[in-house]
Amino acid sequence: MEHYLDNSATTVVSPSAAEKAFKVMTEIYGNPSSLHTKGIEAEKELEQARKALAEKLGAQHEEIFFTSGGTEANNLAIFGAAEAKKRSGKRIVVSSAEHSSVLEAAKHLEQNGWDVVYITPCADGTISPDDVAEQVDKNTTLVSVMYVNNETGAINPVDEIFELARLKNPDIICHTDAVQAFGKLEIKAKKLGADLISVSGHKVFAPKGVGAIYIKRGVRLVSRQFGGEQEKKVRPGTEPLPLIAAFGEACAEFDIKENYRLVSELKNYAVQRLSEIDGVLFNSPENALPYVLNITAGRVRSETMLHFLEEREVYVSSGSACAKGKPSHVLSAMGIDKKRADSALRISFSKHNTKEDIDALCEGIREGLEVLAHR
Amino acid sequence: MEHYLDNSATTVVSPSAAEKAFKVMTEIYGNPSSLHTKGIEAEKELEQARKALAEKLGAQHEEIFFTSGGTEANNLAIFGAAEAKKRSGKRIVVSSAEHSSVLEAAKHLEQNGWDVVYITPCADGTISPDDVAEQVDKNTTLVSVMYVNNETGAINPVDEIFELARLKNPDIICHTDAVQAFGKLEIKAKKLGADLISVSGHKVFAPKGVGAIYIKRGVRLVSRQFGGEQEKKVRPGTEPLPLIAAFGEACAEFDIKENYRLVSELKNYAVQRLSEIDGVLFNSPENALPYVLNITAGRVRSETMLHFLEEREVYVSSGSACAKGKPSHVLSAMGIDKKRADSALRISFSKHNTKEDIDALCEGIREGLEVLAHR
Repeated sequence: MEHYLDNSATTVVSPSAAEKAFKVMTEIYGNPSSLHTKGIEAEKELEQARKALAEKLGAQHEEIFFTSGGTEANNLAIFGAAEAKKRSGKRIVVSSAEHSSVLEAAKHLEQNGWDVVYITPCADGTISPDDVAEQVDKNTTLVSVMYVNNETGAINPVDEIFELARLKNPDIICHTDAVQAFGKLEIKAKKLGADLISVSGHKVFAPKGVGAIYIKRGVRLVSRQFGGEQEKKVRPGTEPLPLIAAFGEACAEFDIKENYRLVSELKNYAVQRLSEIDGVLFNSPENALPYVLNITAGRVRSETMLHFLEEREVYVSSGSACAKGKPSHVLSAMGIDKKRADSALRISFSKHNTKEDIDALCEGIREGLEVLAHR
Repeated sequence: MEHYLDNSATTVVSPSAAEKAFKVMTEIYGNPSSLHTKGIEAEKELEQARKALAEKLGAQHEEIFFTSGGTEANNLAIFGAAEAKKRSGKRIVVSSAEHSSVLEAAKHLEQNGWDVVYITPCADGTISPDDVAEQVDKNTTLVSVMYVNNETGAINPVDEIFELARLKNPDIICHTDAVQAFGKLEIKAKKLGADLISVSGHKVFAPKGVGAIYIKRGVRLVSRQFGGEQEKKVRPGTEPLPLIAAFGEACAEFDIKENYRLVSELKNYAVQRLSEIDGVLFNSPENALPYVLNITAGRVRSETMLHFLEEREVYVSSGSACAKGKPSHVLSAMGIDKKRADSALRISFSKHNTKEDIDALCEGIREGLEVLAHR
């Protein structure tokens, strides 16, 4: 029996989303840009999905633009805003615990003459609004802080961060990478005070290869892709319609409250069971989003434990999947020492998990610590 | 009964490709970057598709990089090569009949200080190797000419173009947008002499949202997307695995010879039947790829005829779907006058078409010319 506890890396596609994608591929196969009925049918699917996403972000449908995923959405936010605002200033502020698609984009800007300030998280993994505001000046055109951290589940006070940043510079563009928050926390773009929000399909039971960016009406980005008229030229290129339609379907299935309750229970149970194991330390802050639980398991290297667990069909990760096993910049930014970080495991839950999954995990870790420590 | 004759805009997804995508979504749902079995299973699918594509391009699998589609592949080729080579020179040569994803990228470079030379096609719609070579100098770092034109089917002598261009500058990077040629003509990257080749899934019975770029070993591009380690950092971001696997499946089904024979027959039949209609003129050159037939139907505006035909469930286009009905830059580049271009229709075939489709088309056009001319 399979125990998939790596839902922050990716999720299985929900049956109805997969069926929707299949239907679009085989029946509603027109090009949404085609002028005839076949195109119009396809465009309808596109707009229906756009509305589904808009609703889940408390946005207008004209404010939603589809991308090929979270990375493209984050890149578009960072480069698009920096480029659009470069005449107002070339300074941006980002947290140092961001996903690589924000950090690498920021580094690229740095290499091209931008002044990039990286804000280190506090010991609990969150970014302090004061720390951000302190670095914002009149030349700062963009602030980018993720909503929920992908490795620890730490929830950043993005609303406060954006509020304080705007006190220092009312023209600043505020971006949040909400890939790990979307579908797990209620998101209202206005309440959050965000100008730009990135989300991804494959973390919420939609397929890999689709994401979206919320762009508040009136906020201008310079496109990253150039070509046809799709997505109002913000993101040209034939839309991944089967995936977009599936993404819309997955959004329609969100039950944020109920899943939160369920996952909280699972996480509490996991914390309780894991606490009983000698050598297990918790890296996630206590008030983190319950979907992610980062722990350190003794002195066994993350990858060794990960492979020990997979033999028991228990799947967890050593950190971000996108980092492919490289040491965690997030834990190190939190001040967690290298040895402890080297044995870190990220357990990430979904509504499909059960207590049996956690029992299997705990048994695996317990055995692993015994067997592997003596190797 | 439906008569879909707009296969250059997009194709229906083949059943086995759609089933493959479905299977990946629901069963092989791991993140290819994850270190555990679930990730490795997914990575296997990725590499299998890469091999399928490599085979169809006469390439090594390490030379294939997946993208979100033809637009991203073309953008990566143009920007990536221009950026990588900018110290050697800032001049590039492109044909003026390219797809918008090449032309708009070139224009963006022009706005950023590059010297862009646009080569106008001859009356038959093809680009002359001499015209290209004449414009290549020591500062010219990139030449980009599409293999088959999407609006007329004109086949460019890209091998000769690249050969002559290299005589003028051996370091030049040679790119061809092969979106409309892939799966229809045998492509051998080496024989073509291309450094970069763009292809797209949804023109060859794979889903929308996936494409690929062939990058000859040793050729360096500057990435357009920044983030994780995927696609050797040439194209970071979680891969659209269901679509990639489906693309691989679609490639495995190519029967280029047999389909060419079939479509040639259909096209010849169409030419014969259409010739019998007063007022029909042919815009495609005679030796064009048989998959595309561009005609002018009297003085009836393209869109008017298109909608008249769709009432009969006959689907054609007025040009590139990506242009959403804007006047054709391709026909105008060929020297076709505006009036004639305003009544242009693109008929594009696939292996699924039959003579009945063409009969329905011809009947529709004949009636259309009668009814609409008198309105």
